[in-house]
Amino acid sequence: MAAKNDTEVIINGKIYTLSGYESEEYLQKVASYINNKITVFKQDEGYKRQSVDVQRTLLELNIADDYFKAKKQADSIDNDLESKDKQLYDTKHELIAAVIKNETLEKEADSLKEKINELEKTIIRLETELAEKSKSSSRKKASSNNSSSAGIVNE
Amino acid sequence: MAAKNDTEVIINGKIYTLSGYESEEYLQKVASYINNKITVFKQDEGYKRQSVDVQRTLLELNIADDYFKAKKQADSIDNDLESKDKQLYDTKHELIAAVIKNETLEKEADSLKEKINELEKTIIRLETELAEKSKSSSRKKASSNNSSSAGIVNE
Repeated sequence: MAAKNDTEVIINGKIYTLSGYESEEYLQKVASYINNKITVFKQDEGYKRQSVDVQRTLLELNIADDYFKAKKQADSIDNDLESKDKQLYDTKHELIAAVIKNETLEKEADSLKEKINELEKTIIRLETELAEKSKSSSRKKASSNNSSSAGIVNE
Repeated sequence: MAAKNDTEVIINGKIYTLSGYESEEYLQKVASYINNKITVFKQDEGYKRQSVDVQRTLLELNIADDYFKAKKQADSIDNDLESKDKQLYDTKHELIAAVIKNETLEKEADSLKEKINELEKTIIRLETELAEKSKSSSRKKASSNNSSSAGIVNE
């Protein structure tokens, strides 16, 4: 906890010594905010006609109004933040699902490519077998023709 | 714009007539907030010893402090909201990229499956051709054996 300190501020032309834990900078900012309000109020003829008690009550109500408006704004942004959090959570879940699906699809593509590779090997083997069968069948045909002509020669 | 209305509020035991556009409900809430502060302050011996002017200045500073704290909170949540917005934007972009990749991978898988289908058809065709070649070659062999035995008979 910071040390308690005394700070002099001027509000509405009077010096006040404030004792507390807030920084001098902060207290001067708060005093300056109140002085600005008083300056604005003093430009209003209706305000100037009021008793000091009414003037101060109006000032207090005005500052309190600023507080409630800032609080309302904070609450509203807080709701936005909550809804944004929910959206972010949902979007991250969708992203995870999409990434998992990508991995599955990549594995599937790999396994399909492997299958294609095997099928292409099978085709090469079958085509080779077929080519050999064709070669041996034409050799047989040729040798069968030869034995046939030998027969003719023998006759 | 709402009609201007007069609202009577009691602050620190005195009646004030407030003229403005705020609802009676809101003004009573603000008055009640100020009265609560005064009640708390009056329990403090140090406060009670002060002049009315100092007491009211302390009250004004205290309300202004609430305002600055609420404002700071609103600003801080606003920063969180901005950072959450940025995160959401980035995550949505990642999601879109992942969904596009999914579509590409699905198309690739479809085209790979189509290729497998074609290759399987080719294999069936080649196997059929090979089976027919084997059949016709054993028929030829049989018929060549027959002509051979015919030759023997002829001898």
